[in-house]
Amino acid sequence: MKLAFASDYQEGAHPKIIEKLVETNDLKTTGYGSDPYTIKASELIKRACGNDDLDVYLLVGGTQTNKVVIDSLLRPYEGVISPDSGHINVHEAGAIENGGHKVLTIKNEKGKISSQDIKDYCRAFYADQNASHMVKPGMVYLSQPTEFGTLYHKDELMAIREVCDEYDLALYIDGARLAYALACDENDVSLKELACISDAFYIGGTKCGALFGEALVTKKDLIPHLFTLIKQHGALLAKGRILGVQFSAFFEDGLYLDIARSAVVYADKIRDALKEKGYKIVYEDPTNQIFIEVTDQKMHELEKDISFSFWEKSDEDHTVIRIVTSWSTTQAEVDDLIALL
Amino acid sequence: MKLAFASDYQEGAHPKIIEKLVETNDLKTTGYGSDPYTIKASELIKRACGNDDLDVYLLVGGTQTNKVVIDSLLRPYEGVISPDSGHINVHEAGAIENGGHKVLTIKNEKGKISSQDIKDYCRAFYADQNASHMVKPGMVYLSQPTEFGTLYHKDELMAIREVCDEYDLALYIDGARLAYALACDENDVSLKELACISDAFYIGGTKCGALFGEALVTKKDLIPHLFTLIKQHGALLAKGRILGVQFSAFFEDGLYLDIARSAVVYADKIRDALKEKGYKIVYEDPTNQIFIEVTDQKMHELEKDISFSFWEKSDEDHTVIRIVTSWSTTQAEVDDLIALL
Amino acid sequence: MKLAFASDYQEGAHPKIIEKLVETNDLKTTGYGSDPYTIKASELIKRACGNDDLDVYLLVGGTQTNKVVIDSLLRPYEGVISPDSGHINVHEAGAIENGGHKVLTIKNEKGKISSQDIKDYCRAFYADQNASHMVKPGMVYLSQPTEFGTLYHKDELMAIREVCDEYDLALYIDGARLAYALACDENDVSLKELACISDAFYIGGTKCGALFGEALVTKKDLIPHLFTLIKQHGALLAKGRILGVQFSAFFEDGLYLDIARSAVVYADKIRDALKEKGYKIVYEDPTNQIFIEVTDQKMHELEKDISFSFWEKSDEDHTVIRIVTSWSTTQAEVDDLIALL
Amino acid sequence: MKLAFASDYQEGAHPKIIEKLVETNDLKTTGYGSDPYTIKASELIKRACGNDDLDVYLLVGGTQTNKVVIDSLLRPYEGVISPDSGHINVHEAGAIENGGHKVLTIKNEKGKISSQDIKDYCRAFYADQNASHMVKPGMVYLSQPTEFGTLYHKDELMAIREVCDEYDLALYIDGARLAYALACDENDVSLKELACISDAFYIGGTKCGALFGEALVTKKDLIPHLFTLIKQHGALLAKGRILGVQFSAFFEDGLYLDIARSAVVYADKIRDALKEKGYKIVYEDPTNQIFIEVTDQKMHELEKDISFSFWEKSDEDHTVIRIVTSWSTTQAEVDDLIALL
Repeated sequence: MKLAFASDYQEGAHPKIIEKLVETNDLKTTGYGSDPYTIKASELIKRACGNDDLDVYLLVGGTQTNKVVIDSLLRPYEGVISPDSGHINVHEAGAIENGGHKVLTIKNEKGKISSQDIKDYCRAFYADQNASHMVKPGMVYLSQPTEFGTLYHKDELMAIREVCDEYDLALYIDGARLAYALACDENDVSLKELACISDAFYIGGTKCGALFGEALVTKKDLIPHLFTLIKQHGALLAKGRILGVQFSAFFEDGLYLDIARSAVVYADKIRDALKEKGYKIVYEDPTNQIFIEVTDQKMHELEKDISFSFWEKSDEDHTVIRIVTSWSTTQAEVDDLIALL
Repeated sequence: MKLAFASDYQEGAHPKIIEKLVETNDLKTTGYGSDPYTIKASELIKRACGNDDLDVYLLVGGTQTNKVVIDSLLRPYEGVISPDSGHINVHEAGAIENGGHKVLTIKNEKGKISSQDIKDYCRAFYADQNASHMVKPGMVYLSQPTEFGTLYHKDELMAIREVCDEYDLALYIDGARLAYALACDENDVSLKELACISDAFYIGGTKCGALFGEALVTKKDLIPHLFTLIKQHGALLAKGRILGVQFSAFFEDGLYLDIARSAVVYADKIRDALKEKGYKIVYEDPTNQIFIEVTDQKMHELEKDISFSFWEKSDEDHTVIRIVTSWSTTQAEVDDLIALL
Repeated sequence: MKLAFASDYQEGAHPKIIEKLVETNDLKTTGYGSDPYTIKASELIKRACGNDDLDVYLLVGGTQTNKVVIDSLLRPYEGVISPDSGHINVHEAGAIENGGHKVLTIKNEKGKISSQDIKDYCRAFYADQNASHMVKPGMVYLSQPTEFGTLYHKDELMAIREVCDEYDLALYIDGARLAYALACDENDVSLKELACISDAFYIGGTKCGALFGEALVTKKDLIPHLFTLIKQHGALLAKGRILGVQFSAFFEDGLYLDIARSAVVYADKIRDALKEKGYKIVYEDPTNQIFIEVTDQKMHELEKDISFSFWEKSDEDHTVIRIVTSWSTTQAEVDDLIALL
Repeated sequence: MKLAFASDYQEGAHPKIIEKLVETNDLKTTGYGSDPYTIKASELIKRACGNDDLDVYLLVGGTQTNKVVIDSLLRPYEGVISPDSGHINVHEAGAIENGGHKVLTIKNEKGKISSQDIKDYCRAFYADQNASHMVKPGMVYLSQPTEFGTLYHKDELMAIREVCDEYDLALYIDGARLAYALACDENDVSLKELACISDAFYIGGTKCGALFGEALVTKKDLIPHLFTLIKQHGALLAKGRILGVQFSAFFEDGLYLDIARSAVVYADKIRDALKEKGYKIVYEDPTNQIFIEVTDQKMHELEKDISFSFWEKSDEDHTVIRIVTSWSTTQAEVDDLIALL
């Protein structure tokens, strides 16, 4: 069998989570998130965010969460500012436009956009005499870590927050891989700070050890009737308790904050080995994704023993591939991988 | 603790299913339904449907499945014919309209509409000189069992199929509680027949013993690019294997066909007891839902010991309540319930 | 040539309007409704409505106006209450659903619904324990006159307004044929009262003597960014002045209030003649539309000399047809029609 | 009064058109485009396009036409390729996204994109292993002339057509200012060729001398139920004959092909004068739009006597402004303008 480095969603769930699901399986609860596990998860998450004036909603997947939030936050005449590399702009099959909204792109720099970029965009919009014929920027979408594994630093996010306040933009942060940011030495943005700086963000479960699930955290009462909007999107889980059980497990002993530590350490190790062996690392990032450019011939050799993911063709003969570690990656797998590279 | 008869989605999953999830938890697979479990589930379901010219897609929930199918099957100028009591018309928070389509309602008779009703609707539409200013009927939505637990018989469905062919309508059947139909003596429509008569239908998991999940079965190539459409709806599960594992468990030893048998037997028993005690049964149905009208005073008495669900106010002083058995209901619970009524 | 009684939009424009269009044709103005004619029309309409705290927008057609207003007023989780006979529910090809919203129908009585109907609907909604899974009523749509030519009386509208306030519903009135209501003796609702009672309504031009055009009147600032929303709907006329010129002509000498007087008088005359000749009048109404049921044989006879419109099949052998007078109908045409009936 | 060079939609209609509207004003016709004028216009346009296998629909405005066509041609999983400068991408307030579709942008070169650009886009899409998670290109949107007044040459369009065939893309051309292209010496694409090369295009009326109106021309039966789709968009004119009369006037004596000749000649004259006076012409184009960059101080001077339009800020102190000639521009106005520059 090949060494599995293609993604961070290749297994079921972290042992502790699967154990809790088994343990609670026979208990009978009410549905749609009104059960005690969901309520407990919500309380634990608010506590971890150090703030009671928050609302927590548990959803099934990332694209689903992005679509629900953006559809619900924007008014019909508004669009969402996003890095051109943002997941919502590239890999969600037009989910945002399907909801009626334009993604207003800004060229990314290693997956990120800056407060200055956003300011320039808004200034140009409001200075344009045809602005009323154009899509008004209504919110900003970022991800932490970004699509390329890079991180926003606290001062960067605070500067973005300031621009958002100036131009009346909601700030929403996609945390599909948030555990990998939180576990990373380079990171200086805590969960509390994320909750404080953003209007809404989500704590990714699917890629961070849950069977599935994402915890959306918003400022209290940010989105009226969000429960109904979730239902309308086909995103309401009947047995909401399954999400509640998982996120309770993540947050009752701080599991979520630790779970990705080894993944990040191993990723660093692999990066070091790659550099040593002369590979070209394309986006230098500190989390669990590693992007290297290889010749197509090399790619075909590697794929005999290793499963990784295609990222993009860089030219006729070269491809960028992605190697990903996860909470479940072992030292032995890393050693084997390095030996094979 | 109260006796739990409020719904058929109060527990986790059937023991066999949870066991399979545990068993496969550590295995690494590719994502988005390309894994061996999903492929196996798809094969098993096609075999159970007695037909290879089918496509199977595994989704997370019922409203999600309805929304994806209807959005994808209809053209923008078309609407979906539904009983006025249909789930899509009443309890999906406007999910179908959110996708741009009108629900064209026909008054239900115990949750059902007839081939003649549909024929009359279409005849009137095509006879109307203003038809081109109106929403064209493009498909028919039914559920088996219906919202009221009643069943379509084979000859009824075949007559509806004929009308659908006459008026170029796709026929889609919502099987959220399909196991309860299949387990019912009164039922004369097999899985094979459903697959043959309909253009698309779904085999409900959530209410029939899965942790969650619905298996959509369509005529082969009915909906081009359905994978992308599922993604666009935020309905694509990254770890698709979790659905694959569950539906493999349902169909490898015929579990799905048996799982609801006790629920149906117990429901009959409860109905008999209710009649004997002089309760008014509102919709006489042969599956696992029991609808009775009680005074509000009686309702408040009952709810001290029993959890059931509110159905609708019938007048100032009376309410229709719903008692539901499930695959997990035990003889002891039924006895206790009868004693309390 | 046949006698033309099929609709009230069979000619170009009223002579005064076409004259003003010719007179202003060569003048150069800015576009998109920023021109002096549109500004003047807006001022004149506000004056006619006796209220400065209004916004006026000039649009091209009725379905367009309904769609823009309803899309813009409702939030995604809301629907619009309408008589089942309402134009938005029957003859707009699903325009409202295309915008994502459900039309919540109430059975009409001669085209109308009552304050009690709306109250009952809302009470049932808020009493329903599943309300958060359902479409929330967000506004009420009525037309004055209705689809069947009937009128709401002032006390009826005021009672509806009260229910709207109680349940936080916006009240929107479609005035496609408003001139025919205003010209009618039975009518007791003035333009000022309409502007006062409703949150938004439109003054129909197309069917009342304009070349085309409808004047939307809303409470001041009711819909933020409505200009952009109109553009987004493809409903913004580049040469907005053409609408401005027409509505200025309608309102500078009170033309609009008079224009339909003869149509209403002639309609009464025709109704009297029909009754005398033993025709069955289906909806007794006081404005310019006359609905009679005839045998299909009679219908085919009549259509040799008269153009009228098909309304609906009432049974295998009978059809309801509609005879319509307009601002342009002449005494001679009416006499000829009566002679032919 | 200022010299009016801000746009080509500053007046009412060309004298011949207004005359025809007056002449036909009293005639009674059926509605919604079933009248003899619309039928005649349609026949004349098909003749001018040299092809009977076409369908013609008359609509009111450009954004409306773009929205109706794109919404109707694309399937939900598809998007439309457009130059980033395309009207649909910049100045239609998100109308395309409001219809659920992504605009897939390609960087423009003077308003144009090349067949190679489109080929590269499609190749990259189909080579991407994540393509099924992305928006599939379904059609190409171009304008002739472009937003910057430039023209596609016949060989360029034919090469684009070839790529469209290769990648199964519909080709749609926005002809809002088509008369200015047809009247231009540099142009080598006739109406017949446009009709042949594209799947659909529209012949702009609003900016080319009509009171308003655009004639959409499609391959026969390209869009099923387009009439209903137009209605659903609120884009169906009740008195369709007003469009029919205008387009008949345009095409019965070849008026449309001549109407913009003087505008193009005058624009050349103005460009020559500007160059002589040392102005910086930003996009060199051969039609009726002239783009110059001036200091903001110069702009403020010019706007005392001339009305032109703002195009974009080029930097802190400079602005690109647009001077536009139209079918109604006179030699005297041009002389006055040149004297003032």
